[in-house]
Amino acid sequence: MKIGLVGLGKMGANMRERIRGAGIEVVGFDRNPDVTDVPSLEALVESMPAGERVVWVMVPSGEITDGVINDLAGLLAEGDVVIDGGNSYYQDDEPHAALLRERGIGFLDAGVSGGVWGLKNGYGLMVGGDAASVERVMPVFDALRPEGERADGFVHAGKVGAGHYAKMVHNGIEYGLMQAYAEGYELLAAKDLVTDVHGTMQAWTKGTVVRSWLLELLVRALQEDPGLAAIDDWVEDSGEGRWTVDEAIDLAVPAPVISAALFARFASRQGESPAMKAVAALRQQFGGHAVKPAGTTGPVTSTTPAAGAAVPPSA
Amino acid sequence: MKIGLVGLGKMGANMRERIRGAGIEVVGFDRNPDVTDVPSLEALVESMPAGERVVWVMVPSGEITDGVINDLAGLLAEGDVVIDGGNSYYQDDEPHAALLRERGIGFLDAGVSGGVWGLKNGYGLMVGGDAASVERVMPVFDALRPEGERADGFVHAGKVGAGHYAKMVHNGIEYGLMQAYAEGYELLAAKDLVTDVHGTMQAWTKGTVVRSWLLELLVRALQEDPGLAAIDDWVEDSGEGRWTVDEAIDLAVPAPVISAALFARFASRQGESPAMKAVAALRQQFGGHAVKPAGTTGPVTSTTPAAGAAVPPSA
Amino acid sequence: MKIGLVGLGKMGANMRERIRGAGIEVVGFDRNPDVTDVPSLEALVESMPAGERVVWVMVPSGEITDGVINDLAGLLAEGDVVIDGGNSYYQDDEPHAALLRERGIGFLDAGVSGGVWGLKNGYGLMVGGDAASVERVMPVFDALRPEGERADGFVHAGKVGAGHYAKMVHNGIEYGLMQAYAEGYELLAAKDLVTDVHGTMQAWTKGTVVRSWLLELLVRALQEDPGLAAIDDWVEDSGEGRWTVDEAIDLAVPAPVISAALFARFASRQGESPAMKAVAALRQQFGGHAVKPAGTTGPVTSTTPAAGAAVPPSA
Amino acid sequence: MKIGLVGLGKMGANMRERIRGAGIEVVGFDRNPDVTDVPSLEALVESMPAGERVVWVMVPSGEITDGVINDLAGLLAEGDVVIDGGNSYYQDDEPHAALLRERGIGFLDAGVSGGVWGLKNGYGLMVGGDAASVERVMPVFDALRPEGERADGFVHAGKVGAGHYAKMVHNGIEYGLMQAYAEGYELLAAKDLVTDVHGTMQAWTKGTVVRSWLLELLVRALQEDPGLAAIDDWVEDSGEGRWTVDEAIDLAVPAPVISAALFARFASRQGESPAMKAVAALRQQFGGHAVKPAGTTGPVTSTTPAAGAAVPPSA
Repeated sequence: MKIGLVGLGKMGANMRERIRGAGIEVVGFDRNPDVTDVPSLEALVESMPAGERVVWVMVPSGEITDGVINDLAGLLAEGDVVIDGGNSYYQDDEPHAALLRERGIGFLDAGVSGGVWGLKNGYGLMVGGDAASVERVMPVFDALRPEGERADGFVHAGKVGAGHYAKMVHNGIEYGLMQAYAEGYELLAAKDLVTDVHGTMQAWTKGTVVRSWLLELLVRALQEDPGLAAIDDWVEDSGEGRWTVDEAIDLAVPAPVISAALFARFASRQGESPAMKAVAALRQQFGGHAVKPAGTTGPVTSTTPAAGAAVPPSA
Repeated sequence: MKIGLVGLGKMGANMRERIRGAGIEVVGFDRNPDVTDVPSLEALVESMPAGERVVWVMVPSGEITDGVINDLAGLLAEGDVVIDGGNSYYQDDEPHAALLRERGIGFLDAGVSGGVWGLKNGYGLMVGGDAASVERVMPVFDALRPEGERADGFVHAGKVGAGHYAKMVHNGIEYGLMQAYAEGYELLAAKDLVTDVHGTMQAWTKGTVVRSWLLELLVRALQEDPGLAAIDDWVEDSGEGRWTVDEAIDLAVPAPVISAALFARFASRQGESPAMKAVAALRQQFGGHAVKPAGTTGPVTSTTPAAGAAVPPSA
Repeated sequence: MKIGLVGLGKMGANMRERIRGAGIEVVGFDRNPDVTDVPSLEALVESMPAGERVVWVMVPSGEITDGVINDLAGLLAEGDVVIDGGNSYYQDDEPHAALLRERGIGFLDAGVSGGVWGLKNGYGLMVGGDAASVERVMPVFDALRPEGERADGFVHAGKVGAGHYAKMVHNGIEYGLMQAYAEGYELLAAKDLVTDVHGTMQAWTKGTVVRSWLLELLVRALQEDPGLAAIDDWVEDSGEGRWTVDEAIDLAVPAPVISAALFARFASRQGESPAMKAVAALRQQFGGHAVKPAGTTGPVTSTTPAAGAAVPPSA
Repeated sequence: MKIGLVGLGKMGANMRERIRGAGIEVVGFDRNPDVTDVPSLEALVESMPAGERVVWVMVPSGEITDGVINDLAGLLAEGDVVIDGGNSYYQDDEPHAALLRERGIGFLDAGVSGGVWGLKNGYGLMVGGDAASVERVMPVFDALRPEGERADGFVHAGKVGAGHYAKMVHNGIEYGLMQAYAEGYELLAAKDLVTDVHGTMQAWTKGTVVRSWLLELLVRALQEDPGLAAIDDWVEDSGEGRWTVDEAIDLAVPAPVISAALFARFASRQGESPAMKAVAALRQQFGGHAVKPAGTTGPVTSTTPAAGAAVPPSA
């Protein structure tokens, strides 16, 4: 078997290597000449026979994925199949599928989880689309997924969009899990009583109810840097957490944990919080409570009373 | 009528003035010689006839209140009444009441709300204790509460402890209200579309569903300092918010809003968040995602990939 | 002055009455023949001279508002002005404005707060659009807003969309405020110590930090029905709370309180919670903890142990 | 080696079996004659030589644990060691240790995680106390913990109390993890697009970032009962989640995820929510919004307007 792979970044390059390791020929294209196998998308398409092509797209979601799929719609032929394995928004999938469908080209959306470890461990795969296309691409899925039972690392989750929807929810859960461990870490670290935080979390990695791969990674990070002194408390969010909460709102599903984890990330990136300035201002207004003048450090040292004479409009 | 008032700080001094303004004689005692009326607690007690004394205690909760009430238990006589008007924890009230009860001294707990504005507007009062003692002290309550219907600014909420319990819940609500306005303020301030944030919040002060005294105070703060540039995003918590959430946990009452407001204050005071360092570390571990080295400022500029070769224990 | 008013539902009918009370002539149109002043939108338009018309639209947001504004675009003339006073999504405003602008028709978006009480108390108004149009409609705004200073009940918040954006945030805050009071109410009601819940909340209505119009309404509800026995714990959400949290996500503004309030409403309407079924299932799986069989009532009476022999895949 | 084990319930009986399987002699005592090895605590103590005894206590926390430790303090001799392996509150440990220390008896607190699966998989262990006592009991810890590296399933976390503190935090994290998976489950189940919810979650068990033992258990539950039709959405909490949030409050550590998970459990057990009744009442008061009369089912069908004539006190 032979497939095309568009996008050879951190994820794509590893996937190329894993697929090749399973004996499948891969023609990779990337705009970076240092990593690409062919000079152009056209060359990639021409390297495979029309009607039998399978092209896996692994590029950033949004405009770049739109562009590649548009280009492929013009280059591919009836009977070919495209898989979008990036982190696309699930509502983008059906428009992509429709565009390709007009030309007789199949489409699958595939959520791919595993990060930089997928090369070694395999990738968890969630796929949406028609059964015939899934069957066509199954050798590739089998190459990418972890060894063992297929059902433990691969699912045909539903029709077009279901794969990326499942990946979105997967990432929303991931936000919640990470925040739960992080709060627990802080509670251990804040308590003098616990003299071995790293060892405690390591002791949780087998036998306990909270054992998980994420926990193993946190233990690994603490092993390298006890106290996490070298890392800033600044956390990016990739977009999928936002989509998950948007979806929860749309479906009227309560999602207090996932949203709390998302908001904690937003807050982590704020140099200062306008909201908390407002709360501080309110406390000063009604109670003459101490505030910290902006730009100061250390504890509050003086109280600025509210102007005693002035009164609010209705007072 | 004549009463003793122990504690002439920000609240106590204003209350003395308001009670006197209602024609009640007040003998105030404070350790600060600049503000006290009498040189000692003994002198305060001796200034009133035994069995007819009413002594209002307005000192910081906890050990200081414990000390004053212990002292009063030794100085007062049967038939006297003590009111604890500070922000005492409601579970401290019955022990205080029991100590005084042994000597035939009455006890009331009074939650007092109104901050620095109470002198002018009157104080909202929530009282716990027996009906006879409440009746005895009613002229003082009437002096302190806002003008108008007694029921709009005073309640005999229940037996000993009920006053401070009600005040605790009042403050828990206050945390939630302030955070709600603060989040709304930030949403207005974050949007270019809205060119008059102060004016918008001022326009809410009459007619709208969200009109309130706290809103008027926030408008006042914005009037003095649009953008709240002079105030730091650092918010103290006085303890009553913590008690409220502890109580919610004890009663199995869901309190997502009050607890979120409390946690936002905790976070506002953290120089850096150990939890968010842990989340950042996790993202770096599984995905090779960018982290900010500790101590840097500005946006993330480089990605530190996870060591590709090493694997976590079970990988 | 004379204006047209489209939509005479609960809000529109009251607004017609208040505007008329200020001496402004109002021609109202509604599809309900019992309340309409004219038989058709055309008749409403024809009742005013071209180029001088002011038409206030007060109909449900979304498709119905779209339809009315489309119709007005075809019927009105250069120099006329349309105000959308409904709860439209702020991103709908600029398309509406652009459609009308092509024909030389002005457009303002107006957030209107006050509910059924606005007839008597006046409505808080937040307006977006150009200054000239605002000036044209000011007599109507002055008629609708509460008496007193204009700035306390009216704001020209910014360009087109700013009025509805401000109203959206207003409603988001409202969710948070209501939930804060509700949690406090439950904490009072859950505690035997407090024997007068209604009286306690009434005592907060003057002098306290938490005094507000919403608090007065809650006291009123408790006066009519102590214990709220006649009302179900089922809370609708009108859409503006969802938009507010969506916006917070889009702007990366932490909104833990507003989102918690929204999710509490979602949960209130669930006959049963799939999420909590999953948590119950998990507890049963790992610990053999008691679960309640579906459809039972009352306390858990027996424990269903996890099948001891079977093990999960990796165990 | 030979040890005593007090408490042969679900956990204790399994632990006896696992320890015996490692070749250590166990004398178990339980008040239930069907499972006990000896007729009394005295008999258990007498079965081992004074000064060399190791007694593991595995009974419900609180009064029952207090009672057993008090009894052991009277029965054991200098040089003996007691381990409290139950879910005791960590602040109870030092008083227990002090009581035993007076008599020269050692004390360790051990957090034990693993549920009903521990018999087969081993238990994760977190231990607090002095190093000499830990050394004495190490053969038992090695018998109980999972096979493999000791550090992956056992930690000497700190002095007395550290073991139970670590276990408390472990359980707090567990609450957050379970709620995160549960919210994700609900988001999958609520979406028609996903036609294989069970299969999707199973596909996450290998390779993905969210893989964990809890996930495997949830997949197992869904395998037995797709849709979880036989289980009620009623979730108990064992107390450790409450302690975790109390601790977060005491340490001023933000814990939005763990607290949200705890509150979701509280809400799951409420027949009706007083707070949401209050919110519904408020909406009816200000807007004449529809409410559901108590006791009705199905959608809201009519609107009960607020009494138009009456006004709240300040309106």
